[in-house]
Amino acid sequence: MDILFTFKIEEHQKEALVEKFPTCTFHFQRTADCEEANFAEVIVTYGGNIDEALLARAKQLKWIMVASAGVEKMALEEIEKRNILVTNVRGIHKTPMAESVLAHMLAVKRSIPEIYAIQETKDWTYRFSSSELRDSTALILGPGAIGTEIGRLLQAFGVKTIGCNRSGKQTEFMDESIQFEALLKKLPEADFVISVLPSTPETKGLLTEAHFNAMKESAVFLNFGRGDLVDEEMLIRILQEEKIAHAVLDVFQTEPLPEESPFWTLSNCTVSPHVSSKSGKYVERSLVIFEENLEAFIKEDKKMNNIVDVSRGY
Amino acid sequence: MDILFTFKIEEHQKEALVEKFPTCTFHFQRTADCEEANFAEVIVTYGGNIDEALLARAKQLKWIMVASAGVEKMALEEIEKRNILVTNVRGIHKTPMAESVLAHMLAVKRSIPEIYAIQETKDWTYRFSSSELRDSTALILGPGAIGTEIGRLLQAFGVKTIGCNRSGKQTEFMDESIQFEALLKKLPEADFVISVLPSTPETKGLLTEAHFNAMKESAVFLNFGRGDLVDEEMLIRILQEEKIAHAVLDVFQTEPLPEESPFWTLSNCTVSPHVSSKSGKYVERSLVIFEENLEAFIKEDKKMNNIVDVSRGY
Repeated sequence: MDILFTFKIEEHQKEALVEKFPTCTFHFQRTADCEEANFAEVIVTYGGNIDEALLARAKQLKWIMVASAGVEKMALEEIEKRNILVTNVRGIHKTPMAESVLAHMLAVKRSIPEIYAIQETKDWTYRFSSSELRDSTALILGPGAIGTEIGRLLQAFGVKTIGCNRSGKQTEFMDESIQFEALLKKLPEADFVISVLPSTPETKGLLTEAHFNAMKESAVFLNFGRGDLVDEEMLIRILQEEKIAHAVLDVFQTEPLPEESPFWTLSNCTVSPHVSSKSGKYVERSLVIFEENLEAFIKEDKKMNNIVDVSRGY
Repeated sequence: MDILFTFKIEEHQKEALVEKFPTCTFHFQRTADCEEANFAEVIVTYGGNIDEALLARAKQLKWIMVASAGVEKMALEEIEKRNILVTNVRGIHKTPMAESVLAHMLAVKRSIPEIYAIQETKDWTYRFSSSELRDSTALILGPGAIGTEIGRLLQAFGVKTIGCNRSGKQTEFMDESIQFEALLKKLPEADFVISVLPSTPETKGLLTEAHFNAMKESAVFLNFGRGDLVDEEMLIRILQEEKIAHAVLDVFQTEPLPEESPFWTLSNCTVSPHVSSKSGKYVERSLVIFEENLEAFIKEDKKMNNIVDVSRGY
C-alpha cells in the first residue's frame, strides 16, 4: 500500500512509521504535486492541496487523512462522489486551545495586563483591582472536544459551566446544557461567553447585537472559533460603547487582521493572532491518530476514528 | 460580650453580625485607638495595631481574631504571657493566589506577553512558539493550604506535582512529596519551581545558587511566598546569565521594589507588585471564618478553627 505524506515530519517519526507498518510504502514528498499521488491509496495532508486536479490524477485514492480540524478547503463534492474516506484530527487542538482560553480568562481576572504594564513604568503603587474565576459563570458555545475540555478545567476552578449547541444535548463537564434558541434568555447569567464553534451555515452571524445587549456589562467575550460568528462592525461598536467589559479574539473575518481594524487599538479588546491552537505537539498528536487509523485501515475493520461526514463538512 | 472591629466592613455585614449574635455588643470603630478597646473581650484586626500599649489597656481581651495570614507584627510575647487566644484567616488566600500562580504559568506557556506585545505593533505575522502546561512537572515549596490548591489545579491540567516541605509528609494533590533536604536532587526534573513558603528561620535563604544551577535551563521560578527565600543579587545574576528561563516574583526583600532594582528591567523576569492574594472577597471570607469561630467561642467549646500557635508564630 502506497502512502503519500504531503507535509513535513521528523526523521525519527518517518523511521517509526516505516518500522511499524512493514507492508506499507511511505512517500514523504512534502507536496501533492508529485507522481506518487497518481498511485497512492492514502494521502496524509493539511487539506489545502486536495483539489479537483489532484483528485483527477489520484485514481487509487481511498483515504484522505487530514491533519487539520476543517476540511472546507478540499473538493468535497468530488470526494463524496468517489466515496473516498476522509478522517481528520478532531480533538487535537483541545489541550492547547483550552489552556489558551484559561490563560486569557485568568489574565483578565488576575490583572495580568496591569501587572505587565506597571513593569514598564516601575510604578509599584499603581492601583488596580483583581477578581477571581471562582463562582463565576461561563457560557460555552460549541461543547465539542475543545469546549468540554474548557468546561472540565473551568469546573476545577469552581466555575459554573453552561454548554450551548444546536441540539441542547447534555454534554460532559457542563453543569447545564441549552440549545442555540435559548441563548438570548441565558446570556444575562454569564460572566464569560466563550465560542469555539466551527464555521457552518448555522453559526455564521449567530451572535447578534441583541445577544451582546443581553450580556452583563462586566461580561468577557472570547471568540476562539471562527470570525464569522459575529458581525465585526457591530462588535466594534459594542466594545466602543462598553456594552461588555472585554473581548479576547483569536479569530477574525479577515486574517491577518488588517492594520486599520479598530480591534487593534480598542483598550477593552485583546487581539490574539490565531495562535490559540499552537504548541509543539501538533504533528506528534496527528501521527498518533493516524497510526491508530492506519492499523484499522490495513485490517479492513471499520473501527476508524475521526471519520468526517463529507456531506455535512465535519 | 463586647467585640471591637478595628477595620472597615460593609453596612450589610454589620447588620448581619448584629442580627446573628444578639448576645454580643459590636463596636465598629475602625481603630484600636478608642476607649472600647479597654473592655472588649474580642478584637477583630488586621494585626498591625496589637502592640504593648494596646495590650496594657485591653484588660478584658481574651481573643484576637487577625484577618491576615501573618501575626509577626503583633506583641507576641505579651500575648503568650497573658494566654490570649489568637486566630487568623489561614487559607483565605488560597483561591486568589492559586489563580494568580496559574495565570502566570499559563501566560508563560501560552505566549500571553508576546500576544499583548504584538497588539502594540499590530504585527500579526510576528512569530513566537507556544507550549503547554500538560505533561510538565511542578515542584511546589510549601504544600499548605495555598500550595495544595495550586497542586489541585495543576493536576487538572495534567501537570505532575511534587510537594516539598520540612517533614516530607505526603500531602493532598501532590503526586510525590519530598523533604527540603531532597530538593537539590529533585530540581533537575522540575519545569516549574513554585514557592508559597512563609518567612521562617528555616526558609530564609533556602534556595541557594546551587539550587538554581541544578534547575533546567527552561525552568520557570515563581516566588509567591516571601522575598527572603532567595538572595536577590544571586537571583539577578542567575537571570542575567539565563541559567533559568524566567522568574515571576510577587514578593521581594524590600517592598515596594526600589526603582533601581534590575528585576524591573530583566526581560526574563515578571515583577508582580505583591498583588497575588488580592480579590474583592477578602473581608467576606474573613467574616465567614470569624462567625464560625465566634459561635464556638460563645458556646465555650474548643472547636475553634485557625488557632495560631503564638510561640511558633503561625
